[in-house]
Amino acid sequence: MTVVDAARAWARENGSTFENQLFDLLRIPSISAESQHKGDVLAAAEWIAANLKAIGAEHVQVIATPGHPIVYGDWLHAPGAKTVLIYGHYDVQPAQMSDGWHTDPFEPVVKDNIVYARGSSDDKGQMFIHIKALEAYLKTNGGAPVNVKFLLEGEEEISSKNLMAFLQANQELLAADVCVISDSGSFAIESPAIVTSVRGISYMEIHVQGPATDLHSGGYGGIVHNPALALAQIIAKMHNADNSVAVPGFYDDVVQLTPADRDNLMKTDISEAALKGDTQVPQSWGEAGYTLRERLGARPTLEINGILSGWTGEGSKTVLPAKAMAKVSCRLVANQHPERIYELVRDYVASITPPTVTSRVVLLNKGEPALIDPNIPEMQAAFRAYASGWGSEPVFLREGGSIPIVVDIQRVLGMPVIMMGYGLNNDGAHGPDEHYSLEMFHRGIQTAICFLGEMAT
Amino acid sequence: MTVVDAARAWARENGSTFENQLFDLLRIPSISAESQHKGDVLAAAEWIAANLKAIGAEHVQVIATPGHPIVYGDWLHAPGAKTVLIYGHYDVQPAQMSDGWHTDPFEPVVKDNIVYARGSSDDKGQMFIHIKALEAYLKTNGGAPVNVKFLLEGEEEISSKNLMAFLQANQELLAADVCVISDSGSFAIESPAIVTSVRGISYMEIHVQGPATDLHSGGYGGIVHNPALALAQIIAKMHNADNSVAVPGFYDDVVQLTPADRDNLMKTDISEAALKGDTQVPQSWGEAGYTLRERLGARPTLEINGILSGWTGEGSKTVLPAKAMAKVSCRLVANQHPERIYELVRDYVASITPPTVTSRVVLLNKGEPALIDPNIPEMQAAFRAYASGWGSEPVFLREGGSIPIVVDIQRVLGMPVIMMGYGLNNDGAHGPDEHYSLEMFHRGIQTAICFLGEMAT
Repeated sequence: MTVVDAARAWARENGSTFENQLFDLLRIPSISAESQHKGDVLAAAEWIAANLKAIGAEHVQVIATPGHPIVYGDWLHAPGAKTVLIYGHYDVQPAQMSDGWHTDPFEPVVKDNIVYARGSSDDKGQMFIHIKALEAYLKTNGGAPVNVKFLLEGEEEISSKNLMAFLQANQELLAADVCVISDSGSFAIESPAIVTSVRGISYMEIHVQGPATDLHSGGYGGIVHNPALALAQIIAKMHNADNSVAVPGFYDDVVQLTPADRDNLMKTDISEAALKGDTQVPQSWGEAGYTLRERLGARPTLEINGILSGWTGEGSKTVLPAKAMAKVSCRLVANQHPERIYELVRDYVASITPPTVTSRVVLLNKGEPALIDPNIPEMQAAFRAYASGWGSEPVFLREGGSIPIVVDIQRVLGMPVIMMGYGLNNDGAHGPDEHYSLEMFHRGIQTAICFLGEMAT
Repeated sequence: MTVVDAARAWARENGSTFENQLFDLLRIPSISAESQHKGDVLAAAEWIAANLKAIGAEHVQVIATPGHPIVYGDWLHAPGAKTVLIYGHYDVQPAQMSDGWHTDPFEPVVKDNIVYARGSSDDKGQMFIHIKALEAYLKTNGGAPVNVKFLLEGEEEISSKNLMAFLQANQELLAADVCVISDSGSFAIESPAIVTSVRGISYMEIHVQGPATDLHSGGYGGIVHNPALALAQIIAKMHNADNSVAVPGFYDDVVQLTPADRDNLMKTDISEAALKGDTQVPQSWGEAGYTLRERLGARPTLEINGILSGWTGEGSKTVLPAKAMAKVSCRLVANQHPERIYELVRDYVASITPPTVTSRVVLLNKGEPALIDPNIPEMQAAFRAYASGWGSEPVFLREGGSIPIVVDIQRVLGMPVIMMGYGLNNDGAHGPDEHYSLEMFHRGIQTAICFLGEMAT
């Protein structure tokens, strides 16, 4: 039996233990965006550090940052072999029953071999796979075929605010030959995906102010510009009739698709029927002239993530609101720049704000887009790992989501980043009833074991 | 000393007692729209009933309805004299510190002879004036010059849901020669206003649904129509470029202004400077071709009272919301019909909803508009009461707000309704820091005493 096969067999035998460990981690509500959960985020970090120590990782530390901590740990006893840096995150998006969850988001429930819990797919479940893969080698062979380092952060859902500074200050600690990130999904279990591009983001708030205070809508309605109306009118000017973004200059830096790119993207195109089945929308939407996959992976967008003004509770309050707010995010593709896009949106909003109200646009978060060449050796090692460990050849996918860290690691640490997705796109990440297939969890562990083996060859 | 003068003198002597009584009533958070305040609404009704009994009113009852109770009381010992029915309401709009209040909305604070509290102007303060006017007669003369009945409800801020049925079932109990309502304002203390028209209302919710659940904005942004965007696009089509309402048929039933009407309305026109000073808006807004007073009092409007979708809390949640909601109300003028306007808006929204989302429009509340002839004798009695009791001749005003009960009383009880406003338009009704001038409170009591006297002549 090879070293790889021994580790794979041990991992299969210990699957239920791994599941129970994951469920313990999922019970910790490590919501990085909400300050009242700061203690829970720390608790999750300490839980992971304890697990890393238990499997035999060394130099395990919970490292404080100005925000939430970073967990580091390594195993470096394969002299001469390559070093793999595993990045993941243990923080999660906000979640509460009133968002539409059917069970407590922080009490994992298993149904039909699928676990329902916030963070099950994004990213606790996918991240934990790599810890268990290393454990399988250490428990069966006394060592792994390559060196492994873990960099696990608690601020991915709030745009990794303190990670860049950490990377810059710890380049020697984090030095490796390749970085692997599992924080992405595919459309089907039998067609796993290696992500070759991620979108960047510029996340903003638009604030519109009318009168100094809320007014009686009877006493002032019709003579004062309602800020909620003004905001809706501003938002409605954000797109053209063909659903392209109307902000001048928005597309200037976009890498245009070649005919070869478009042929490749067709391999992972999304069918209208699949989209309707997944989401229950009446029909798809988007920028004219592009396929669904192109709109999602190769074209930038402008989304409204939230909007609030006036009375939104029970009953009818006849208020003319003083102000209105929208959360707006642009998903960016190579080679757009988040700061530049913010400036363009800010200037456009200023130009279309009527003189009857005032407005301002605030940049909350940003992340760069990235494109990675599928032909480099590390990508090919990942390809082979899926073929043997997962049991299916992967597709190379352009992802719609954002992992700003990909760009940061490439630039600061100078290594290629391989995004080996172990989730499904309809796992409900960020929404209610987030869930994760336990079959994929175990196939992920098998694949991660194979990847470490492939990196040794 | 005449009977009227004796009552006026007594009221002046007891002014501070009246103020303290009013403050007690203002401390009761009788918010009719919020079910958790049901007990407080009842407590306010019982407080008023106790005060009516204390002043010498008879047949005092707190009458249960399917919603909040109605308080009735009368004094009918002026045989052969006319009967005046006083309508008012003791319920208030929602209020909480986070809306922008500088002091607790339910703990009255007096500053510069102005009391700050929810309901101080709308309508507890104005309503209480009439109870104190009757008290002044009963304490000084052993009787009033006319018969007086009180009809005080607890559901005015939720469109008087149960009042119409009460009027229909109690026509004999409520029979009178005239109904007086004080639930309106003027622009200046020295220019009190008798309101000759009120706007009606159709209060609706627009719901837009996209995907079945919230989605990750990275995973689906650009291929699914964002419901918050779709709602903003729908709202932006509600007005034409000249700020008129774009709903087809919206203006069909509007009584058009004659040149004489427009001359009269010029007497109470609102200056741009006054509006900017009151509200701090950069400039006025509204339907082209009409003055501010005409827009407010003689033209219908469509307002956004609230809008909600997606993530509106702290930080940046990258959600593509499943749904979006707006509270929309149309202020109506004679002879528009609330149900008809609802149908027109509903059909228009359906016609402009894109096929990528679904929408529905729900009617929450409605009220008819009213126009009253300023030349009837009861109007003239009110005019003289202001001249002697307030010390200033009133203007006849077309009001922007809605008092649906005006139409209901006219139709069901068959009597004219005189709207004697004792408030100011910038009292902050429905907004934070609602306040009421105690000088106006006392001048109102003097005027109400004079009105009962004038009705006896």
